[in-house]
Amino acid sequence: MSLPDEFHDIAKRVNNWGRWGADDEIGTLNLITDEVVREAAATVRTGRRVPLALPLQQDGVQTGVIPGRVNPLHTMVQINQEIFGPGTVACSDDAVTMGLQAATHWDALTHVSHSGKIYNGRPASTITPHGGAGFSGIDKPRHIVSRGVLLDVARAHGTDRLDGGHAVTPEDLEAAEEFAGTTVRAGDIVLVRTGQTQAYLAGDKHGYAFPSPGLSVRTPEWFHARDVAAVANDTLTFEIFPPEIENLWLPVHALDLVEMGMLQGQNWNLEELSEACADEGCYSFMLSAMPEPFVGGTGTPVAPVAIL
Amino acid sequence: MSLPDEFHDIAKRVNNWGRWGADDEIGTLNLITDEVVREAAATVRTGRRVPLALPLQQDGVQTGVIPGRVNPLHTMVQINQEIFGPGTVACSDDAVTMGLQAATHWDALTHVSHSGKIYNGRPASTITPHGGAGFSGIDKPRHIVSRGVLLDVARAHGTDRLDGGHAVTPEDLEAAEEFAGTTVRAGDIVLVRTGQTQAYLAGDKHGYAFPSPGLSVRTPEWFHARDVAAVANDTLTFEIFPPEIENLWLPVHALDLVEMGMLQGQNWNLEELSEACADEGCYSFMLSAMPEPFVGGTGTPVAPVAIL
Amino acid sequence: MSLPDEFHDIAKRVNNWGRWGADDEIGTLNLITDEVVREAAATVRTGRRVPLALPLQQDGVQTGVIPGRVNPLHTMVQINQEIFGPGTVACSDDAVTMGLQAATHWDALTHVSHSGKIYNGRPASTITPHGGAGFSGIDKPRHIVSRGVLLDVARAHGTDRLDGGHAVTPEDLEAAEEFAGTTVRAGDIVLVRTGQTQAYLAGDKHGYAFPSPGLSVRTPEWFHARDVAAVANDTLTFEIFPPEIENLWLPVHALDLVEMGMLQGQNWNLEELSEACADEGCYSFMLSAMPEPFVGGTGTPVAPVAIL
Amino acid sequence: MSLPDEFHDIAKRVNNWGRWGADDEIGTLNLITDEVVREAAATVRTGRRVPLALPLQQDGVQTGVIPGRVNPLHTMVQINQEIFGPGTVACSDDAVTMGLQAATHWDALTHVSHSGKIYNGRPASTITPHGGAGFSGIDKPRHIVSRGVLLDVARAHGTDRLDGGHAVTPEDLEAAEEFAGTTVRAGDIVLVRTGQTQAYLAGDKHGYAFPSPGLSVRTPEWFHARDVAAVANDTLTFEIFPPEIENLWLPVHALDLVEMGMLQGQNWNLEELSEACADEGCYSFMLSAMPEPFVGGTGTPVAPVAIL
Repeated sequence: MSLPDEFHDIAKRVNNWGRWGADDEIGTLNLITDEVVREAAATVRTGRRVPLALPLQQDGVQTGVIPGRVNPLHTMVQINQEIFGPGTVACSDDAVTMGLQAATHWDALTHVSHSGKIYNGRPASTITPHGGAGFSGIDKPRHIVSRGVLLDVARAHGTDRLDGGHAVTPEDLEAAEEFAGTTVRAGDIVLVRTGQTQAYLAGDKHGYAFPSPGLSVRTPEWFHARDVAAVANDTLTFEIFPPEIENLWLPVHALDLVEMGMLQGQNWNLEELSEACADEGCYSFMLSAMPEPFVGGTGTPVAPVAIL
Repeated sequence: MSLPDEFHDIAKRVNNWGRWGADDEIGTLNLITDEVVREAAATVRTGRRVPLALPLQQDGVQTGVIPGRVNPLHTMVQINQEIFGPGTVACSDDAVTMGLQAATHWDALTHVSHSGKIYNGRPASTITPHGGAGFSGIDKPRHIVSRGVLLDVARAHGTDRLDGGHAVTPEDLEAAEEFAGTTVRAGDIVLVRTGQTQAYLAGDKHGYAFPSPGLSVRTPEWFHARDVAAVANDTLTFEIFPPEIENLWLPVHALDLVEMGMLQGQNWNLEELSEACADEGCYSFMLSAMPEPFVGGTGTPVAPVAIL
Repeated sequence: MSLPDEFHDIAKRVNNWGRWGADDEIGTLNLITDEVVREAAATVRTGRRVPLALPLQQDGVQTGVIPGRVNPLHTMVQINQEIFGPGTVACSDDAVTMGLQAATHWDALTHVSHSGKIYNGRPASTITPHGGAGFSGIDKPRHIVSRGVLLDVARAHGTDRLDGGHAVTPEDLEAAEEFAGTTVRAGDIVLVRTGQTQAYLAGDKHGYAFPSPGLSVRTPEWFHARDVAAVANDTLTFEIFPPEIENLWLPVHALDLVEMGMLQGQNWNLEELSEACADEGCYSFMLSAMPEPFVGGTGTPVAPVAIL
Repeated sequence: MSLPDEFHDIAKRVNNWGRWGADDEIGTLNLITDEVVREAAATVRTGRRVPLALPLQQDGVQTGVIPGRVNPLHTMVQINQEIFGPGTVACSDDAVTMGLQAATHWDALTHVSHSGKIYNGRPASTITPHGGAGFSGIDKPRHIVSRGVLLDVARAHGTDRLDGGHAVTPEDLEAAEEFAGTTVRAGDIVLVRTGQTQAYLAGDKHGYAFPSPGLSVRTPEWFHARDVAAVANDTLTFEIFPPEIENLWLPVHALDLVEMGMLQGQNWNLEELSEACADEGCYSFMLSAMPEPFVGGTGTPVAPVAIL
C-alpha cells in the first residue's frame, strides 16, 4: 500500500519544508511574531479567562483502543507525612503515569511521519527509543502564545454537536468565520468546535471516540493559505474518523504535521469557550497554550487558557 | 515536638481562612480579578515571550533525596508505527512517569498541612490515597493568568547568585522592587530570583538542592500585606534551606499554603527572564502559568510564560 | 452499615491471631515447614513443569472497572543502543507501570482490612501512602514453595467452566479431592479451578470479570480445618461475585486474609495444569510461587510454576 | 569502531545458532530436560529455602547512571478504601513503575545485540518500540527450574568480597567447583558469587556499581563446554567492569546472550546462600527462578529461590 496521488498533490501545495531554513524545527509557529503577540494582548477586553483542558484523571477520554495511550494514573507517594519528625509541617506528594497524547494535548510535529520523513524532510528514523524525537520534539517550541480564534462550526450550523460523519470543510470554516465576524490572520491559532466533547462530558467515551466529526482532508490547504500557526479541536482524532477517502488514514495529520509543519491540538474542551464567545459577541482572544517541555516528546498535555 | 509560638504568632497575622467564604478552595487566587487581568494584558509592550520551565527530562533537578519525587521517565510506546498497514501514515506516541512536584511546578494549597489542618481550616485527612486532595487540589484553580513582577534579588544585590545561607527578607524584596521601579500590587504573581538555578544549569544538582537561599519566614507577612496572588522562585525548596530557626522546618510552606492560601511555585528558571527584564528595563509583564488539572493533585508541573 | 453476625461467627472460628506469636506477619505460611518442602520435592515424578501466570501485557485481565488497577504498560527505554559508541555491543532496556494486583498475583495479608484491623489484630492504619504496609507486606513471606494440590472443581463436575453463579463450597472441594485421589494436608497450597479463565483466553474480558464463580463464604472454615498454607484460583475476584449474601462484599477476602492470615492468589491460569494433572493422573506436585519482594506491597505479580 | 578479532574468534567457538532449530527462541534453556528437573528435585535434602532477590524499593541498586533504568517507584492507589460503602471490607491496592533490568533480574536473550543480530541470527530490528522483542522476549522461556550450583569464588579465595578489578576466570570457576565438591553438569544454572553485594548491603551503591569484579571474557567458553543452562551473579554488570580489554565493552553479554543464547542474571543476592551452603556443606540445590512473563520484555525482575 502507498499513499494515493490525491494525497501527494495536496502535500505539494501545502509543503513548508525549507521555508524557515533547513534547521527549522517548529514550522508554522514561526508565524507568531512579537507583533502578533502584541496584537493578541490587545484583544483582551474583559479579562475573562476560559480554561480549555479536560480534567486529568483515570476516567479520561482514552478507551483502551489505542495501545499504550494510557489515561493518567495519579497516585499519592506521601500524605501528610511529617518528614522532619512528629508535630512538624507535613507534606503530601504525588506521581503520575500517562500517555503524552492521552488527554488535552498538542501533537508535536513528529507525532506522525509518512514515506519515512518528518517535517522539514528529516528522516523519521531520527525518532529513537532512547531520546525520543531528535528533531522537532515538543520541547522545541519554546512558547505558544498568540491570538486565538474560535471557529464554532457547530453553533454556526445551529446545532449543539455535528454528526459523526461530518467532515469539516473549508466552506464550514468560512461560514464560521462569517458567523464570528472575525477574519483568520497569519499567526493565529484556530480552534475548531464540533461539539463532540459533549459525548464525553455526558459519559459516552466510546461515542466520543468514534465515529467522530473532524477536519476534512481539504482543510490543510485552507490553513496554509491563511498562514495559521496552529489548529486545535474538540475531538479525539482531530480529523474526521473514519476517514473520507477509503484506506487513506490520518491524511490530515500527515499534511498538517509533516508537510506544513503545523501543530495540532486534540481533546480540547471548547464548550465553555463557545458560551463565552457567544455571550461576549467576540470570537477572538488571547490564547496561551504552553507545551510542557518534555525533551524529545512527540506530544504533551496542555492546559490552554483563552483570555477574552 | 510542636510548632513554636513564633510560628503561631505569624500564622494568626497572615491567616485568610474564611476570607473568601467557608467553601473557598483557591485562596489568594481570588485576588486575580478580571480587572487585574486586563491590566496584565496592558503591560505587554514588545510581545517578547520568555518561557520559565526547566526541560522535563530524566536528568532533572531531583537527586533522589526526596523519596518518591521522581524525575520524568519519558518512554516511547510506539515509533513510526504504521498502525493501519504498511505504507500508511505512521505514528509515534510516548508516555511519562514523574513526580508532580519533581520539576518546575506549582504546589497546590494541599501540598502541606500542619496541626492536622489544610487551607481554610479543613481537616488534613481530606487528602486520601484514592482521590488525592478532596479540597483545594491543583484542579481547583481553573486558570492562573495575571500580572507578573520579577523581584530580581540577586541582580539588585549586584550578584549572579545569592549565597546558600541567604534568607530573602522583606527588605530584600523592597530593595528589588525599588531596583525594578515597580510596586507590587494586589493580585500580582511575584517571581523572586535568587540565581540558584545557575548551579543546576552548570550541572551541580546537589549544590542546587542544598544549601539553598530562599524566602525567609518573615516574607509571608509581606506577601499578605501586599495581597499577592501567588509567589514562585528559582530554588528546589522555595524557602531558605536549612531553615533560619532550628528545628522549624518548612515554616514558609505552612504559612503560605495553609494559613494564607497562597500558591507557591518552585524550580522556575528565571535566568532568561532576568536578562530580558534588564534589557527592557521593565520588571512587570503578563504571566500565564496554567496548572495541568490533575484531579486531586497536590502539585503540578507547569510551563509558565512571561509576555513582556 | 456493619458486617453481619454471620460473618463475625465464622471469623471467630477461623481466627489465627496470636497463633504464631504477636509479632507474626506471615500467618498460615508458617505451616510450610522444611518437612513439608522435603515432601513437596518428593512429589516430583516426571520433571514436567507447568507455568501458571497469564502473559503480562496491556491487553491483560483488567477492564478499567477497578480504579487504579492498571494493566501492565510495557515500554522500551532503549533499543539496540550502542551506548559505548558506534559498532559496540548494543543494549535494549524496558520499563513497566502496572497495578500489583492487576495480573496473576498474590494478595498480601494487608490487601484488605475490616473493622479497622489487619491480620494479627494490628491497626489498618499501619498501611501508609509513603511506606505501604508497615506489617505483613508482600516482602515479608521470604519464600513460597510447598506442595501444591489442584482441586479441579470444574473437571470433577464434568464441565469445562462453572457457571457464573456457582459458589464453590466445601462439598465441591471434597468432591474434587476425591476426584483427584489426594487428601489436602497441612502446609499445602491449594489451587481451585473453576475454568473461568477460558472466558479471558477467548477474548471476553468482561465475561471473565463478572459474573464469576468463586469461593463460597463457607470455604474459609474448610481451609482452616485442613491448615492450608495458601489458596489460589483462576478468577478475577477469588470469591463468587456478586456475593452469596446480599450486601456482604468480599467476606472471603476478610476471612482468609485478615482473620486467618492466609494468602490468596487470583488470575492464575490453571488450564494447562488441569490437562497435565489429568494426563498424569496426579493432582499433587511441587509448587514454587515466589512473591516479588516489593517493600510494603499489598500484593505482587507472581509467576508460579508447578513441577509434576 | 568494530568488535576485535579476539571477540569474533570466541564467538565462533561458543555459537549455538541453529543448534535447537531455526525457530528456537530460548537457547540453552533447552538443556533443562525433564530428567534434569527430576534430578534437581532429588537434590533437596533439608527443605531449607533461601530467597535470592534484593528487596524491591526506591532505594534499590540503581544510581541513575544508566538512563531509564529506574528503581521501583511503589505507590498506593487506595488504602483501606471501603469501596462498597461505609463499614464494609476495605481494600488497599498499589502500583509500581520500574525498569525491568533495575533490580534482581534476568536479561532476556534480546537484552543485547551486536553487529545487527540477536540470538539465532535474527535481525536486531525485530525489537520494536511498540511490541518489544518480537523474538526471544522474556515471555518465551515458559519456566526456569533446574539444579542450581553455587560457585562461591569469594569463599574459595578465602575472602568476603573479591577486589573490584578481579576478572573471574575459568580457573576461578574450577577452583570453586573443587571447593564445593560438585561438578557442574549440563542443564545446571550456575550462580557465581563475588561478594560484591556486600557493598550495596552496606549502603555503598556507587561502590557496588563500579568498579566491579565479574566474569571474564574467557568464561563463556567454559560455560559452553559444560552446557550450562543459565548463569547469574551478584553484581550490577555481570562481567568485570571496566572491561579487561580496552574499548571492548560488554563482550560477555554479547557472547552469552547473542552467540550462545544463554540467559544471564544480575544483582542476585547470594550472601545468605553462601552461608547456607557452607553450613550444609553442599553447593547444589533445586533452583526456581521464574521470569515474570512480560510480553516482548528484554528483561524481568525475578525472585529466585534455592531449595536445599
